[in-house]
Amino acid sequence: MSVSIVRTVAELRARIEQWRHAGYRVGLVPTMGALHDGHLSLVRLAKTRADRVVVTLFVNPKQFNNADDLAAYPRSEAEDAGKLGAVGADLLFAPGLDEMYPQGFSTTVSVAGVSEGLCGAFRPGHFDGVATVVTKLLLQSQPDVAVFGEKDFQQLAVIRRLVADLNMPVTIVGGPIVREDGGLAMSSRNLRLTRGGRAAAPRLSAALFDAAKRIAAGEDVDSVIAQTKADILAAGFTEVEYLELRDAETLAPVAKPGQAARLLVAAWLDGVRLIDNVPVSAQIYA
Amino acid sequence: MSVSIVRTVAELRARIEQWRHAGYRVGLVPTMGALHDGHLSLVRLAKTRADRVVVTLFVNPKQFNNADDLAAYPRSEAEDAGKLGAVGADLLFAPGLDEMYPQGFSTTVSVAGVSEGLCGAFRPGHFDGVATVVTKLLLQSQPDVAVFGEKDFQQLAVIRRLVADLNMPVTIVGGPIVREDGGLAMSSRNLRLTRGGRAAAPRLSAALFDAAKRIAAGEDVDSVIAQTKADILAAGFTEVEYLELRDAETLAPVAKPGQAARLLVAAWLDGVRLIDNVPVSAQIYA
Repeated sequence: MSVSIVRTVAELRARIEQWRHAGYRVGLVPTMGALHDGHLSLVRLAKTRADRVVVTLFVNPKQFNNADDLAAYPRSEAEDAGKLGAVGADLLFAPGLDEMYPQGFSTTVSVAGVSEGLCGAFRPGHFDGVATVVTKLLLQSQPDVAVFGEKDFQQLAVIRRLVADLNMPVTIVGGPIVREDGGLAMSSRNLRLTRGGRAAAPRLSAALFDAAKRIAAGEDVDSVIAQTKADILAAGFTEVEYLELRDAETLAPVAKPGQAARLLVAAWLDGVRLIDNVPVSAQIYA
Repeated sequence: MSVSIVRTVAELRARIEQWRHAGYRVGLVPTMGALHDGHLSLVRLAKTRADRVVVTLFVNPKQFNNADDLAAYPRSEAEDAGKLGAVGADLLFAPGLDEMYPQGFSTTVSVAGVSEGLCGAFRPGHFDGVATVVTKLLLQSQPDVAVFGEKDFQQLAVIRRLVADLNMPVTIVGGPIVREDGGLAMSSRNLRLTRGGRAAAPRLSAALFDAAKRIAAGEDVDSVIAQTKADILAAGFTEVEYLELRDAETLAPVAKPGQAARLLVAAWLDGVRLIDNVPVSAQIYA
């Protein structure tokens, strides 16, 4: 059975108010739809932390710096609602554009620091759009816990920062990346790859895991990164936007391992931008 | 008896949680201290709208564009606490700088539109600082209602906008300006005027009321404004930053009356910046 859908903040709040009244803990899983097993794993995770789980579906124009990317973003609400019903979500909040950004809307939430570099350098305004819409979604639903995927690792860091900075009374939980059999990180954008692209795409995660292993084993970070970029291009990717070792929490650049770090990549294949990241754990350096 | 004081968000939330448990409605009155009868009128207003009233005292460095103004801002916490006890406030939240902006703080809330022009033109960054700290105070305390003075009319418009835009579940109430016997709008900054300045200051509100009456009576807006600026300077003010007729809600410039409008002024006297505003009601034009 498909999950029940509401489209206004008033309806959303009325449902949540009933749950609150019954003493239920509420979990939130914000998405842009086109749901895959990665999203569904976040819903399952939310269900372990809350009695009732709301999923949101809103393709947020403010976080698209590229109009073509926004237009091409896959939309499949009816299918999404079916998947959410099957996995036990309790409510889908799928507001229209006017409900989220009515005429006169003028407010922007910006997070400095963690939003700089990486995707922030290549997608101007993207994290302002993310921070603004996530602030709204959290205030619309006021959940006890909200779950975001580690696939968008920098986004998760931005959200943790803004929730702490603005004193939002919610616990943020990161859900691990879910990968296809070949290792490719699940992403709604994978749907836009050609058959050839689908074949080449797993080379990104393979290169990333290999690089993380070599860095952890003590190889020179800069050399590993340069070689890995070349490998990714050789696999058929047209551009590597970045491949960087960063502090796992602050996302500050890490010149030399010795602390919990994360290796993050963004690269273009078939006109589709793919991102991925892997831990490079501190223990491995010891 | 002085009002009880807490200094951490955790203590604030523990108190409010008890009130919530008892079914009380909570009101919030944010201030920067140096309390006068204008502030106390806001506390009285909050008491008519809530069962328990929290006043906050935080001189927010992020909303001072001028370091001298910040350094010179009057501070009188013990006296403030006594006044709040007398007027029946239930709690004073007076956090330190590290409690509000701990190391690593990186988030800014910005409101476009209503924050532009007027004070926004002369105090760069001021309304970002206001929007950020008010968002924090509202999320720290999660009141049912929050009261702000109409003395800072543009600030009130910015706050109404951000609360609507971010879907904050709180009702914003504006409290009317409280004036001294001569008509001068009460302000913590009045304390910094010399004796001569105190004598000249009421000429600002007198000129403003007179201009509003003439505009409402149909006189040409531009001429009235030009003459009134000259009158304010003749009264001993050293600069009129702005004197403008604006839409009372959107704060958009109003070229010709015919809708609910507000006449707003900022002017310097004795090295002190004073602001004031008066309604120019639509009915008067009819």
